[in-house]
Amino acid sequence: MKELMLHLHENSPKYKQIYHSIRSLIENKELHSDTKLPSIRQLAEILHVSRNTTLVAYEQLLAEGYIRSEQKRGYFVEAFETIDIHIPTLHAEKYITEENNIRVDFRAGSVDQHAFPLKAWRQCVNEVLKEDIVYMYGEQQGDSLLREKIANYLLQSRGIRTSADSIVIGSSTQQLLMHLCIILKKEYSSIAVENPGYDGARIVFQLFGFQVNPIDVIEKGLCMKQFEQTDSKLVYITPSHQFPTGVTLPIAERLQLLKWANSQNGYIIEDDYDSEFRYQQQPIPALLSIQQDSRVIYISTFSKAFLPSIRLSYMVLPSELLDQYKQHFATFEQTASSIHQRTMARFMERGHWDSHIRKMRATYKRKIQTLVTSLQLAFGKTIRIIGSHSGLYILIQLQNSVGEKTLIQQALEQGVKVYPTSHLYIGNKPDVSMLKLGFSNLSIEDIQLGVQLLKKAWT
Amino acid sequence: MKELMLHLHENSPKYKQIYHSIRSLIENKELHSDTKLPSIRQLAEILHVSRNTTLVAYEQLLAEGYIRSEQKRGYFVEAFETIDIHIPTLHAEKYITEENNIRVDFRAGSVDQHAFPLKAWRQCVNEVLKEDIVYMYGEQQGDSLLREKIANYLLQSRGIRTSADSIVIGSSTQQLLMHLCIILKKEYSSIAVENPGYDGARIVFQLFGFQVNPIDVIEKGLCMKQFEQTDSKLVYITPSHQFPTGVTLPIAERLQLLKWANSQNGYIIEDDYDSEFRYQQQPIPALLSIQQDSRVIYISTFSKAFLPSIRLSYMVLPSELLDQYKQHFATFEQTASSIHQRTMARFMERGHWDSHIRKMRATYKRKIQTLVTSLQLAFGKTIRIIGSHSGLYILIQLQNSVGEKTLIQQALEQGVKVYPTSHLYIGNKPDVSMLKLGFSNLSIEDIQLGVQLLKKAWT
Repeated sequence: MKELMLHLHENSPKYKQIYHSIRSLIENKELHSDTKLPSIRQLAEILHVSRNTTLVAYEQLLAEGYIRSEQKRGYFVEAFETIDIHIPTLHAEKYITEENNIRVDFRAGSVDQHAFPLKAWRQCVNEVLKEDIVYMYGEQQGDSLLREKIANYLLQSRGIRTSADSIVIGSSTQQLLMHLCIILKKEYSSIAVENPGYDGARIVFQLFGFQVNPIDVIEKGLCMKQFEQTDSKLVYITPSHQFPTGVTLPIAERLQLLKWANSQNGYIIEDDYDSEFRYQQQPIPALLSIQQDSRVIYISTFSKAFLPSIRLSYMVLPSELLDQYKQHFATFEQTASSIHQRTMARFMERGHWDSHIRKMRATYKRKIQTLVTSLQLAFGKTIRIIGSHSGLYILIQLQNSVGEKTLIQQALEQGVKVYPTSHLYIGNKPDVSMLKLGFSNLSIEDIQLGVQLLKKAWT
Repeated sequence: MKELMLHLHENSPKYKQIYHSIRSLIENKELHSDTKLPSIRQLAEILHVSRNTTLVAYEQLLAEGYIRSEQKRGYFVEAFETIDIHIPTLHAEKYITEENNIRVDFRAGSVDQHAFPLKAWRQCVNEVLKEDIVYMYGEQQGDSLLREKIANYLLQSRGIRTSADSIVIGSSTQQLLMHLCIILKKEYSSIAVENPGYDGARIVFQLFGFQVNPIDVIEKGLCMKQFEQTDSKLVYITPSHQFPTGVTLPIAERLQLLKWANSQNGYIIEDDYDSEFRYQQQPIPALLSIQQDSRVIYISTFSKAFLPSIRLSYMVLPSELLDQYKQHFATFEQTASSIHQRTMARFMERGHWDSHIRKMRATYKRKIQTLVTSLQLAFGKTIRIIGSHSGLYILIQLQNSVGEKTLIQQALEQGVKVYPTSHLYIGNKPDVSMLKLGFSNLSIEDIQLGVQLLKKAWT
């Protein structure tokens, strides 16, 4: 099954990759009829995937008649006449042809799939499906049980004292920012943002007509000297783990920001997207925790620490904005699923959340260490690694760099996807291009293979 | 258990109501220790709720030590010392005191809970939880498998020829309208809306600074004479089942609208929120189906026909707007859960969706007929019933009406909640006030009881 391995690591679900790999081997007569296939368990071990994944792939092949299952003997290639290759399949085809040779994808944004507490989550789902809330529109601000759990969690883990009533749940950070913009637009017309910074937030501010003032990010985070010179009374910032540079804003600068917001009657939007994952020290307290009831709008998400697919984010509003929010959005339906919200509440209630975070911190720590060590071994002094103490991605800079595009293209030619950062800058880009490497959904072996291939690509 | 019945029909989940009713009977010593309680099955029958509901209530009481379970003998009231009544509970308390005496709530917006295909849905959920998409951000426009299923469904049931690529999924109609507004705002500054009409849409247009031009709804739907006089080049309309009056826009007016949109380079936003439920004839084809590739933005939702809690809506965009959408929202995350999206796709794939719609049509038909017949028996010629051929609510007008507020208050005093419509009007309200009665999540018995109580209240 050597060929199978070579075709994997593409950008579509693994079971589809396996399905397509086996199917094309059969269609091309590389696997002859009546050949015995590896068992579900064996194949899972060979490919480093879960048994579920190989099971689903086999079931699809069975259903479409490519293979047959013989009791107690296993799976065999079915006698198969090559007449017509245009058999319609779902969507994998598209990806397969587009990104045919991707073996390792350092994409940030997906989460580890093997350590996920599927059983506990499924139990909570099945319980919630018995509840009456399933049949109703949810509460406008979000499920109050989940809001209570979030308030508890914020106190324990981020030092924030708040109550369920001040929390607004939404389906994404961008969606919450849109609602915020509608309110803030009445009083403010410009906003300061970090440069480089999260483009997804910047684009929301721009869509709502805010003038966006970029402030350079230096070694200590936001450059306060530049910041003092803007006339914006709003600032959007990622103080605990600056996106993308990974810098933590020091306490002096934090206090300065809070003082500024109070004196200007402005607001700080604190996006605390992945503060759970610090590998060296404890997570640092949020900006909002320093001064309770300050002019800080705190935003966070379950996408990084738990699952991006359930679309759950939340914000904590200062009392003045909360009143305005309630007034403007009284007739708005909540955008996040109330089934997912209640399931998350039950999941937290039973302690699964805390143990999941602990487990993921250890898992991701192992992965980031593997990635950093492998890169250092492979590139020695010619590589600079940024942000290796926290988060779900790192940045790298190479000496004598040939430019972002070329580096990405060279990596692609070896079957590795790495990601640009230039779109995160407003105005001038840095001289030495930075690349972004996510690792959360890659296995230790994938990470090592990826770095080997990058070495081939770049040296 | 007579008292239990009297305490039900409140606005919080049924199991909580049961839990609280039994708890207070125990706390007030109306149920003495060692009293045998009805079995889960018996109680479910007495209260006309599902066994799951009584089971969950009993489990909560068990967990908190109010009752005990003896093997093969059943449930008994636990010996219980009344020391302190301030035992913290979740959230039901709030609702219980606020709306203590609601026995029948004619709220529109929730769906029937007994006919729901929970088993089939749960099977699809458990399958989807094995798929890789769970661990990733979803596709920007929404899950492509679900978009294909929606395209098929729109062709079969609404006569609309479209493709997955033209469909955009979102977490609510309002959220989709917000995204639309961002695009449309660049070229248009005012929009015509139905009067009375859906306030949730109107408020989105207002938040984005559109001038809103109300057009009266007459017997044939939108008053075309008034419409021709506005200078708006956008119109938001519910042609198949006007909200709230239930009128269907005739074909002549539909053609006229399409012609108008073409000649003005304007757009019609067609909100087709509950077209599945017509009880007399077949569902009528959508406006968009009359002229393919016309200047119609079609919007619909799974909230009415399936579940409001999963937050799934979708729109079909004309090619010009689709290009703009892709350009503006490329860096936006999808707002709807990809787990729910894929689950719905699997549910549709297996034919569950079609049979669910058929079943619900029959169920709701029975309910609406009961409601209409009971009202006619109770109020004779003094009542006018509007919109009884389709949808999940009806409107009523009473002769010699004392005004909306008084009618609602009188009903409340008898333990019945009915809903106003005056907030759906812009400007002058009608002389005789209309009330809105939803029935989807009420049993036949609840509906009959509700009408009896309304008769007491209003005659």
